[in-house]
Amino acid sequence: KKPYRIAVIPGDGIGKEVMPEGLRVIETAAKKHGVAVQFDHFDFSSYDYYEKHGQMMPDDWKAQIGGHDAIYFGAVGWPAKIADHVSLWGSLIKFRREFDQYVNLRPVRLMPGVPSPLANRKPGDIDFWVVRENTEGEYSSVGGRMFPDTDREFVTQQTVMTRTGVDRILKFAFELAQSRPKKHLTSATKSNGISITMPYWDERVEAMAKNYPGVKWDKYHIDILTANFVLHPDWFDVVVGSNLFGDILSDLGPACTGTIGIAPSGNINPERNFPSVFEPVHGSAPDIAGQGIANPIGMIWSGAMMLEHLGEKEAAQAIVGAIERTLGERTLRTRDLGGNADTTACGKAVADMV
Amino acid sequence: KKPYRIAVIPGDGIGKEVMPEGLRVIETAAKKHGVAVQFDHFDFSSYDYYEKHGQMMPDDWKAQIGGHDAIYFGAVGWPAKIADHVSLWGSLIKFRREFDQYVNLRPVRLMPGVPSPLANRKPGDIDFWVVRENTEGEYSSVGGRMFPDTDREFVTQQTVMTRTGVDRILKFAFELAQSRPKKHLTSATKSNGISITMPYWDERVEAMAKNYPGVKWDKYHIDILTANFVLHPDWFDVVVGSNLFGDILSDLGPACTGTIGIAPSGNINPERNFPSVFEPVHGSAPDIAGQGIANPIGMIWSGAMMLEHLGEKEAAQAIVGAIERTLGERTLRTRDLGGNADTTACGKAVADMV
Ligand SMILES: CC(C)[C@H](C(=O)O)[C@@H](O)C(=O)O
Ligand SMILES: CC(C)[C@H](C(=O)O)[C@@H](O)C(=O)O
Repeated sequence: KKPYRIAVIPGDGIGKEVMPEGLRVIETAAKKHGVAVQFDHFDFSSYDYYEKHGQMMPDDWKAQIGGHDAIYFGAVGWPAKIADHVSLWGSLIKFRREFDQYVNLRPVRLMPGVPSPLANRKPGDIDFWVVRENTEGEYSSVGGRMFPDTDREFVTQQTVMTRTGVDRILKFAFELAQSRPKKHLTSATKSNGISITMPYWDERVEAMAKNYPGVKWDKYHIDILTANFVLHPDWFDVVVGSNLFGDILSDLGPACTGTIGIAPSGNINPERNFPSVFEPVHGSAPDIAGQGIANPIGMIWSGAMMLEHLGEKEAAQAIVGAIERTLGERTLRTRDLGGNADTTACGKAVADMV
Repeated sequence: KKPYRIAVIPGDGIGKEVMPEGLRVIETAAKKHGVAVQFDHFDFSSYDYYEKHGQMMPDDWKAQIGGHDAIYFGAVGWPAKIADHVSLWGSLIKFRREFDQYVNLRPVRLMPGVPSPLANRKPGDIDFWVVRENTEGEYSSVGGRMFPDTDREFVTQQTVMTRTGVDRILKFAFELAQSRPKKHLTSATKSNGISITMPYWDERVEAMAKNYPGVKWDKYHIDILTANFVLHPDWFDVVVGSNLFGDILSDLGPACTGTIGIAPSGNINPERNFPSVFEPVHGSAPDIAGQGIANPIGMIWSGAMMLEHLGEKEAAQAIVGAIERTLGERTLRTRDLGGNADTTACGKAVADMV
């Protein structure tokens, strides 16, 4: 069997520090489970590259990484040196759009050893996925400004939802729900206020649901849904939302489980026509970069999601199990979680437990 | 001094049960503080009215209540009998638009005796206001559908932000921040993803801030802002957002303090060209209606906000103090808060403490 070809892009700041731990754990898990992986390293999509070349990525970036099986990504951005919209829209958002990564997937899971801001919740109580539409919706660039610099000034921006775009994300979400024991899908809407696009979203959910009679589904308006993330996080199994609603829920969810610093994410093209990107939710964290204290769990967990996407379920589950056992031991956790391990020690601990 | 003329609209379900308690407490506080109020009762904006007349409100509703100093509103809606968009858009949303109630105001406050879903927070730790733009933004009805029932089908809906609309809500929010001890304003944005309207919002915030040099202000993208409501609710003092972002934050905030069932709200026209509406955040609650067990605190607290809006600060503060003392006693709380008082007993307790 040919090895999976992984494009490795550490990016900026702590991205460079957590990446070696991610690779270490993937290598260990791959060896144990008879999976062959090949890592190809790239220095673009970083501030360093931008400084030298005046752009975030080379002109032929698509040729360089478009043939890989997946992209393993650290973190990008350095707000003091480069505007977010240059660094993010020049790399991550480009990947999403040009590699048609229409699914943004994030787990919301209460892990051992991670203090949750919610009262009286134990590991096991909260365990769901947020599925976010990642290419259209509220993030269109259609719109503009009229009567600039006068009292009549106004701006407009369109939300655009296409049948293709909505149906494929819903299909992914229903499939995911069907594959899980609870088989429960929750849709985020706001059709009582946003009177055109959101009723359309609801309509497509209802149509898609007919194909999945085994899946129980419900919908909540986004306002009360965010409230229910806090009040009843145990209600959820798979939650699907538009680009904006999914963005909100996939930050709020990890916040509720205290895991925003260790959460992983996938920007996925399910058909594998293009490589998908797996990256920790955290950013490049300039404030702690260079000290060797960053928490590598988000990077490592993203590696597990990548293996799962590639079809290597066992290796993926072995990593998630090792993460849970590592987080359960105070001495193996990094400082942000009240432990005293540095980045490398924490990464080695996970590798040892795989 | 002429009495304030208040239009009283109990609406549906528990709206009718909590209203008498709200009126009782306002009357008591008014008498104590030498404030004269006159209540005029209206039966429209209810399912009962709709059943008889085929519409939520009489044709001349504006003439009937448009001259009042404020509208004191219970709850509207009865999902099993009437679609939300008929009952809500036929009354509440109409008031907002036609009475130009461009401010939606809600407190987020950790109260004694109310169990919070957040760990380790005490009354006093969380105390801020959410200011929501209430007339434009994401709730425009501009847009439509193309290529219906084909694979090329798509829908669009515009977000519209006007200079007038944005500036006046920001002015209200900055004024409110300036009047508070912390003088801190937080703006909700998403300019890294929603690339036209949200940068415009940011631009107007920056311009408005120049008029309020005493106010410290910051901004967060809505995704991380919802996370920070859960992780650091003590950071906030006044939070301002667009129609949609404000809608989300003003449900999430009360959820974080456990007060969604007792939170009040104001739909305010600050210039008092039109009457403002004060109503509890909760709905008509068909499941518990008619049993006399509904919690009247949201209705009563809304009365305090109404008196504050009318310029009667002392009477308003007396009510809020009485609410806190009542909530602090288990026997005076209603069942939803672990007490055993019924609606009337709880309302009388607040009136006694005013
Ligand atoms: C009923 C609905 C249209 C309304 C809104 O979104 O404005 C409600 O959620 C609110 O907050 O008053
Ligand atoms: C940086 C920003 C554009 C991005 C988004 O909103 O998509 C981020 O919040 C994310 O969730 O990946």
